[in-house]
Amino acid sequence: MKLYNYFRSSASFRVRIALQLKGLGYEYLPVHLVRGEHREPAYAGQVGDTLVPTLLTDDGVALSQSMAIIEYLDETHPEPPLLPAEPLARAQVRALAQMVACEMHPLNNLRVLKYLVNELGVGESAKSAWYHHWARSGLEAFERQLALLARQRAAQGLAASVYCWGDAPTLADCCLVPQIFNCQRFNVDLGALPLTLAAFEACMALPAFQQAQPSSCPDSAA
Amino acid sequence: MKLYNYFRSSASFRVRIALQLKGLGYEYLPVHLVRGEHREPAYAGQVGDTLVPTLLTDDGVALSQSMAIIEYLDETHPEPPLLPAEPLARAQVRALAQMVACEMHPLNNLRVLKYLVNELGVGESAKSAWYHHWARSGLEAFERQLALLARQRAAQGLAASVYCWGDAPTLADCCLVPQIFNCQRFNVDLGALPLTLAAFEACMALPAFQQAQPSSCPDSAA
Repeated sequence: MKLYNYFRSSASFRVRIALQLKGLGYEYLPVHLVRGEHREPAYAGQVGDTLVPTLLTDDGVALSQSMAIIEYLDETHPEPPLLPAEPLARAQVRALAQMVACEMHPLNNLRVLKYLVNELGVGESAKSAWYHHWARSGLEAFERQLALLARQRAAQGLAASVYCWGDAPTLADCCLVPQIFNCQRFNVDLGALPLTLAAFEACMALPAFQQAQPSSCPDSAA
Repeated sequence: MKLYNYFRSSASFRVRIALQLKGLGYEYLPVHLVRGEHREPAYAGQVGDTLVPTLLTDDGVALSQSMAIIEYLDETHPEPPLLPAEPLARAQVRALAQMVACEMHPLNNLRVLKYLVNELGVGESAKSAWYHHWARSGLEAFERQLALLARQRAAQGLAASVYCWGDAPTLADCCLVPQIFNCQRFNVDLGALPLTLAAFEACMALPAFQQAQPSSCPDSAA
């Protein structure tokens, strides 16, 4: 497999985590977003959305969208699973992932911040306030959701979760960790998010998350 | 089952389509977003993100995030399936759904438009340009992706797709149709999107999509 990738892309980072958790080797193909390499024909001709990441399967099929790629990896390489077995639990994990991927990240990625500045003439402090607003309010919602899930587990007599859901990393952790990295980079207040940060720290204690992080990527020094 | 719902919410509409396609009855619980009912304790205490939709299972568990809810319905009520059987095809359908749910819709929902106006002082025409930019560029990417998939099908000797993927509606159609409704409402240019609009029109010829649409909802006259 090959993965088109940008070291700082949250969505790329999600897929790198999944590949590392499953112990799957892959060729790292850097696409420099800030230099606009994602819009060049060699890349843009392969995928509809010209975003990263794109997974190239061994058969040469290009797959886009990070959560779809991770579920593909989970279905084709089931161990260790990145989703629980039971439908209700699967829905809870997917919903946590989507809280990051559909509510937080889309508002704060590079092309949106560029539009604010270039098309709407938004200044540095208002741009920063925008970033912090969506990131912080999104994480507060995430924390409330983890608290609701924790109460459900307690009511069922289950042990407290170590990660976002249960005692092993899931799709939800693949999405949460890159979001926290971004928040740290932009100095978003991470106070009063105990369950969220406990999950983040449990993840970062694992080699898979360490090896997938931006500073471990071959293009991080470019 | 019960579904917390707002007739104009794209994300609610996606789940209503899935319920109709599967022939599942449900109690419709309206949550009026413009009046802020989603922030009242009776609703907000049940879900972390205080968005709609929320599915209440027969066991009283609240599930959030539309794509997660639809996959839950698909896993618990498999017929008719809303995802193909084969992992690669499932990834392609999920990616189409995520192109809508992670790239287009998050930038154009009510709370984001409100932030533009109230916090950034954006005027009516710039707000409209923002909406049209993300909707139109997102649909152009969607069209390119459908064209890539069509070429793959042709190369494999498969019949052209009737819907977004194949000859039956999937999760991708559940997401596309509400996005097109929104675009029509805000007069987004829908020219030169032949594959996308063909899928939309094939869907709208089905009673399930007709019955799920905003104008069929009990709160549409409120």
